[in-house]
Order: sequence, then C-alpha cells, then structure tokens
Amino acid sequence: MNGAESLVQTLADQGVDICFANPGTSEMHFLKALENPLMRSVLCLFEGVCTGAADGYYRMKETPASTLLHLGPGLANGLANIHNAKRASSGMVNIVGEHSAAHLKYDPPLTSDIEGLARPLSHWVRRVESPSAVAWDVATAVSKASEHPGQIATLILPGDTSWQDAGERAVLPRTPARAKAPDAARIEHIAQVLRSGEPTLIVLAGRSTRGRALEWVGKVKAATGCRVATQFFSSRIERGAGRVTLERIPYAVGLAVEYLKGFRHIVTVETTEPIAFFSYPDKPSLLKSPGTSVHALVEIGEDGAAGLEMLVEALGAASSAAVLQQRSDAPPPSGALTPATIAQALAAALPENCVLVDESLTTGRETMGLTVGAAPHDLINNMGGSIGYGTPVATGAALACPDRRVFCMVGDGSAMYTIQSLWTQAREGLNITTIIFANNSYAILKAEYANMGAGAPGVRALAMIDIDRPRIDWLAMAKSMGVPALAVDTAEAFHKAMADSVNEPGPCLIEVRL
Amino acid sequence: MNGAESLVQTLADQGVDICFANPGTSEMHFLKALENPLMRSVLCLFEGVCTGAADGYYRMKETPASTLLHLGPGLANGLANIHNAKRASSGMVNIVGEHSAAHLKYDPPLTSDIEGLARPLSHWVRRVESPSAVAWDVATAVSKASEHPGQIATLILPGDTSWQDAGERAVLPRTPARAKAPDAARIEHIAQVLRSGEPTLIVLAGRSTRGRALEWVGKVKAATGCRVATQFFSSRIERGAGRVTLERIPYAVGLAVEYLKGFRHIVTVETTEPIAFFSYPDKPSLLKSPGTSVHALVEIGEDGAAGLEMLVEALGAASSAAVLQQRSDAPPPSGALTPATIAQALAAALPENCVLVDESLTTGRETMGLTVGAAPHDLINNMGGSIGYGTPVATGAALACPDRRVFCMVGDGSAMYTIQSLWTQAREGLNITTIIFANNSYAILKAEYANMGAGAPGVRALAMIDIDRPRIDWLAMAKSMGVPALAVDTAEAFHKAMADSVNEPGPCLIEVRL
Repeated sequence: MNGAESLVQTLADQGVDICFANPGTSEMHFLKALENPLMRSVLCLFEGVCTGAADGYYRMKETPASTLLHLGPGLANGLANIHNAKRASSGMVNIVGEHSAAHLKYDPPLTSDIEGLARPLSHWVRRVESPSAVAWDVATAVSKASEHPGQIATLILPGDTSWQDAGERAVLPRTPARAKAPDAARIEHIAQVLRSGEPTLIVLAGRSTRGRALEWVGKVKAATGCRVATQFFSSRIERGAGRVTLERIPYAVGLAVEYLKGFRHIVTVETTEPIAFFSYPDKPSLLKSPGTSVHALVEIGEDGAAGLEMLVEALGAASSAAVLQQRSDAPPPSGALTPATIAQALAAALPENCVLVDESLTTGRETMGLTVGAAPHDLINNMGGSIGYGTPVATGAALACPDRRVFCMVGDGSAMYTIQSLWTQAREGLNITTIIFANNSYAILKAEYANMGAGAPGVRALAMIDIDRPRIDWLAMAKSMGVPALAVDTAEAFHKAMADSVNEPGPCLIEVRL
Repeated sequence: MNGAESLVQTLADQGVDICFANPGTSEMHFLKALENPLMRSVLCLFEGVCTGAADGYYRMKETPASTLLHLGPGLANGLANIHNAKRASSGMVNIVGEHSAAHLKYDPPLTSDIEGLARPLSHWVRRVESPSAVAWDVATAVSKASEHPGQIATLILPGDTSWQDAGERAVLPRTPARAKAPDAARIEHIAQVLRSGEPTLIVLAGRSTRGRALEWVGKVKAATGCRVATQFFSSRIERGAGRVTLERIPYAVGLAVEYLKGFRHIVTVETTEPIAFFSYPDKPSLLKSPGTSVHALVEIGEDGAAGLEMLVEALGAASSAAVLQQRSDAPPPSGALTPATIAQALAAALPENCVLVDESLTTGRETMGLTVGAAPHDLINNMGGSIGYGTPVATGAALACPDRRVFCMVGDGSAMYTIQSLWTQAREGLNITTIIFANNSYAILKAEYANMGAGAPGVRALAMIDIDRPRIDWLAMAKSMGVPALAVDTAEAFHKAMADSVNEPGPCLIEVRL
C-alpha cells in the first residue's frame, strides 16, 4: 500500500473511523485512500467546520475524529475551532497535507511554516519523514489524541510520503488511555474540609459533570450539605430530570463575585478556581472572596469519578441518597419571546436524551437555569470563547449520536462565522434543529462596552456592534444550503416549531425573531 | 488620550485611514476610539473577510489598510487571507486585541500564543508593552507595512495598554518607502543577452505589470523581438486595449514546460523563475528547459520600473514604439455557456477602467486570454493559492476605488469559504458584480486527481469533490445577505447581466449555471 492508504488504514485500525475533510491537490492520494470502507469521510465547505465537527464528535464519543486539511492555510482556517476544542479537552487528529520535500525548496505559493502554525494550538506536531513511517506516526497521533484529557495531535503529510510505497500493512497495538488516580492524601484533606461544616462549593468540570461522577457528588452533597456547581462553561453536562442538579457560576464578574461570596472553601474537580472570562479596568480576575480557601480534589488529567468515589468512601456517604432533579411540569409558555419564555419553551420541548449545543450568548445567558427541569439531556458549551463553534460542534455531535436529536442554539453573529455547517448537515441528513437567536447585533458587546467603562457606544462604535444593515434573511440562508426553515416571533410558535422538528428526520432551522 | 485613542490617531496620522474590523470584548476601547472621524471602520462578519479586504485595498492603493481582530482565534480566522496577501506582497497592519497583562497569568479561556500564531505569516510582530509606547509601535508597524514590497505587520494590543492613559498626542514623522534601484552591472548583462538575438522571455511580476514599467518593457520588446509574459498569477496587471500585452505562462505543468521550451534565456523582473504550483509524482518542479539560462534583471524588493527604464537606455530603445493591444471588436456571444463564450462575454461587457478579481479556477483557466482585447482594466489574481480570497479582495478593492466597478469571478467552492463578504458589500453599498461559476464541484480537483496519477476518482473520492448534494442556491444565498441576484444559463444572458450590473449602483450577484 502507499503512504496514504497506510494512513487511512492505520487510523481505522486505531479506532478513528471518521474524517472531516476539505481536501486540495496535495491530498489526492489521501482522497483515493478514503475509498477504504472502514473510514467515513464527511465533506465540509470550510475547515472551521471540519475542526469544530471533530470537537463535537469527541464531546459525545470521548474518542477522537480525524480532519483532513489542505496545507498551512487549510490548517489556519481550522485553528479557531481547534482552540475551542483544546480548551474543551477534546482530542482530535489533524492530517495536514504538504508539498513533497523535493518541491518545498522552491517555495511554491502555498508554502508556509505548517509546524509554526500548528504548535501554538496543538499538543503534539509531527511531520511524516517517509512513507514507511506513516503507520507508526499515525498510531502515535491517535494515542496522543486519546489521552485523558484529550489532546490535539497534528500530523503533516508531504505529498511524496503519501504516494510512495509504504510496504505491508503494519499492525500496531492500540494504547488505551488511562486517567491518573487522584492522590489519596488530598481526598482525606477534602473530607476534613467537608466535615467541618463550613460553607463549601464543589466545582466540577471535565468528565466529572456526567455519569458516575454525578452520582458520587450527589451523595457528597446529601451527606455534607455542600453545594455543587460548574464553571459557567462546561464541555458537556448530563442534566435534566432525574439527575443531580448542578448550579452554575455566573458569567458576569459582579454576579460571580456575589455568588461565591458566602463560601469558606472551594473544592475543584478537573478544573481551576473560577476566574473572569475577560479583564476589565476595575474588576478582579479572581472571582472568589479574599477569605476563601481553594482545594484541588482532582487535578486536570486525573480521574474525577474515581476521586469523587474515594471522597464518598472517606466520608462514609455510600448509602446517602442524592437529591435528584424534579421534572418541571410548567406548561409551554405563550406570548412575547423573552429570555425567560425562550427557556420555558426549551424546557417543555426538549425530548428525552437530546443534545443541546449552546452558543446563545446574551439570549441564553441568565435563563438557561430554567431548563434544568427538562427531560434528561446533554448540554454542551463553548470552552474557548471563539465564536462560530456551535453549528460545527452540533454537526459532529449529530454524527456521533445519529439516534439523538441535536438542538443548536446560536446567536446570529456567531452563526455567521461557520454558517457553511448547514450544508454538511443537509448533505448528511443530520438530525439537528438549529435555533438562530436573531437580535441583529453582537448584543454581548453592548453590555461589555459598558462593563469596560467605555460608557454608551457612539454612532461609529454602534455600527461595529449592530448587524442590522442589512438584516440577515435566515430563511433564505437556510434555503441556500438545503435546510428547511421557519421563523417564529411568539413563545408558542417557538415551542411548536421545536416540538415539530423532533418528528421530522434531518436538519431544520428556526429563526427566533427578537 | 488613552492607548486606543493614540492608536487610531497614529494610524490616521501615518496615512492608514480604513480599518476592517470584527471586534470583541477586549477591543471595546478601540471601538470607542473609532469614533475618530479620520478613520473609516468597516464591519466584516468573519475575520477572513477583514484580512482579504485589506489585501484588496492594498492591491489598488499600494498603501496599507488596518484590520482589528479579536485575540488569537480572531487572528487565526484571518490567517489564510494574510497568507494570500503576503504572497501578493500586500502590506497590512493587523491590530490584535489581547487580555491585559494582569489577567493573562490566569490563562483565561481565550488565551493563546498570539505571537506564535502571528509569526509564521507576518514579517513583523510586536506586543505593545505600555500605553505610552502605542504611538511609536503603531508608526513602526505602518512603516514596516509600507515597505516595498509590502509587509505584514501585526501589533498585539493588551487591554490595559488600550484603556490606560497614553499622554499627549505624539506626532511622529512618516517614513516613505523607497524601492532599491537594481544593480547597473546586471542591466548591462541583460542588454547583452537581448542583443544576442537568442530567444528570450522576460517574466514580469510585482509592480512591473503596470504603469511606466509596462511602457518600458513594450519598448524593449519592440527593439529586441523578445517576448514578455507574467507568471500564471499576478498581484495586479493593467491590461486590455491600448496597453502592452503580456503573455501568461500556463498553469498546468505540461503546458508550461511546452510554452517555455523554445527560450534560451528567461529574464526575471520582481520574481523568480517559473515553478510548478504543486508537485506531482512524475512531473518537474522547475518548468524551464534544461538548456535555458535564468537572469535576474530586477530582484524582488527592487524598483522594477527603474530597472526596465535603465534597460531601455542600455539598449538605446527609448524611441522604439511599443506595440499596443487592439480593442477586440468581437460581438457578444450567444448560445451555450462554455469557457470560451464566458470569456467572450466578459471581453464585451467589461467597462473601461473596471477591476477584475479572478478566482474562477477551472472555468477561467485557459480562456482568460480571450479578454485581453477588452476595454482597459485591472486584473487581480490569487498569489497564495488559499481559496476564499476573491470576494474579500473585491470588497477591499471596491472600497479603495469607489468610482470603479469591480467584477469578482469566483468558483462556487471558493466562494463558500468567505461568503460573508456579500454582507459587507451590501452594507457599504459597494459597486461589485460577483459572478459565481456554479459547477457544483471542486472541479479543479478532478483534473488534479488524474494529474497525481491517482486515475479516475471512485465513489467515495468523488463525494469529497462534488458539492452538488445539496446544490447551493446562490439566489437565496445572495438574498440572505441583502445582495440582488440573478441566474443565467446562456452566454447572451450572462453578457446582458454583466452589462446591466454596471448601470445599477451597489453590489449584485450573477449565478452562472454550468
């Protein structure tokens, strides 16, 4: 087999069976190798969709997807969503095509320093030096991407290593990822803190916001009366009726400081102490009160569920019964669309076991708590702050979980960044309901302008914030890429549109006119 | 004034009076400073549009524009078109927002190694260290960007340097850019080559494809019988009726080798000898024949017009009369849309002094020569090979030359990369006719697949090349962003649509159904 065939076969052998691709001339042999039926290749019309989809795939499956990107600029187009994936600890294997070594010395137009572009946002970067090295390099990349937490592995594939003979198929062992167990001495220390009865907040992140970890932390809460929260953004939370409820530390600095004020202790699990997202002239970066002590129960990269189980044992809380979230029985709302009625409509419409990708920014910021009594679902947030993550992540999540409906809530400004996602959703017939909150503005910036002490924006500043000239016609946008769409301007219409979307396979788009 | 005000004022003082912006929270003080009426700020809905527009602006004006980008990921989104600009020797000043120094140490979510991301594609990178340094740093950035050839200057602006006091307005001198004169000894050597009568090709690039340089090279050609060409891609060519005609070295390796075969000498002006765009298993990288000698008349960065003038003097050709291009009097075509009828329709419809931005790839590749007899116009190509350059460059070119109609010919695959450009074109009322060649395919890749020796693509490979499921509805796409559009499927309808577009101010889109 040639190098490209070796690459695709090794990816599949190592458990990576999907590739989000936007190929170019230098990747034609890779394209030919994609005829291998073990690999599913998904075409995206922009690389930011490829890398965001790989992130979404990992969030649901906890195993890496691959991407195929065309030289340095193709990688560059995918970097913003690689940043977001890195911050979410999502593993991913990026394959970046490159000129063959003999051609590179002439500095042809598409030449750039691919390693230089890859390193700032990759944990691991390697250039394949010969076709016979491909299998080993790919296996190493997959192993790296599969670590706990997930890593960004970027493999650069020169054309000649792709088309030359790579020898026989290499059968390499898979290296299973193992999270480190947390330190037992730390567990005992935290147990003492909790036994003291002093007000304590446990802050969960990483994989501790779902599954067994949630069950254990529910017992700790029941046994000790501590409170349990997540950061404002989480990579994925299992929430809704029947699950342990997690509070959410607010986004706005003032609200977060107020929220954290009463706690004598903050216990962190797979995260660090709460910090502000941005810096402001007269606001703190650290959000805790001066008298609060911070204790790490589980460091990032350690096994959160194991740490919480050890804590339950140390506390003798194994038989404590966690309080579980009640199902909200509020009826669907009617009347004007407000953040509250939007959240109520969501809570009423979300079907059991759906996935909710949230990039709603202002619209959903303070009201998502109202959806906690919805049917059990998974909630995904943007961990890296680079907008344009939502529609690609929803694309990848839907491919990872074809039997679950994905709801993607996204502000209009964010949606425009990677709107090409809709096309891939239509092509692959993905069960995604995209909800565009159309306020015709980067509304978050109006608040941030004031938060920064810049006062009220003037005419020219406002012209950089409002995107209402022209108004984006979202029905036309969806139509252009083959996605059925409708617009709503009441809470009852919004609820009905969401509920209806569940019954129709494939993607749809709902424009929520605010 | 604060640091942000100092920044905007200094940009304007140094002659940079336009900013293509997509701001975020960390740039709110910059936004406030944009109230300065000396600066025109243009909102783009994706950073690749900002950087591509800055490239287009430079291509027409030969002075740099600025961009405003939101931290590392905002810069990353702009990198592909920075790559294209760099390869076109377009100068640009990128202002990248950053967390304040005090906040950065907590590694908040949007943190990344901005210098690391900027360096591979910037000639100059600096982080502002204090508000009082802003003016000096900005003046240095503008001076760097204004060099000949133009440079990519990237200035990182931490929030605190933006909002803190920068003192009085600093008045700094402008540093005018000067191109080096070419070496006189080299001129004499080239004159000898040309006097020998051996078959010689002069290859022009950089600023030598327009203005006085064209006039001089026309005299050299008339006096010596040499031939004159450009590389396949040029940053900007002045061409059409009444101008010296430049041949074009073909793109395909086989055709280029055949074209160059007869020449004993190749003389380069602001470029290097012709090389292949990509490498292929059994094709050469260098396109000249083994017996051909290459001579640099003018190196990149030197003054091409001065070098050609010196050559005219050395040859005693000052009174030679250049042969100028005749106006084609072919009538507008009718019938089926083919590459030839498309080019004929263009030749008939292009109005005098228009600007033609070409990203048509397959559709225009071999037939653009047919437009050489059109009314005089400027032709712009993609120098970096990263697709998605066309619609942003057209946006910037139209802002640089509000009294000239810009035609942007773009393949459907390329257009989807940075389609958000249409929104800025509508918002600013720009005189741009976007021509989408809708073949529902990355058609170039079908040829490249065969060129690579990969044979005919199989079903799965074709699925990564064809973008016909779903077909993009270009009329709906244009409508979604407020641009009037129509579709054509005959040569006469195409010609009429182009001719009509000239009479209607503002943007429009023509879908050419292939």
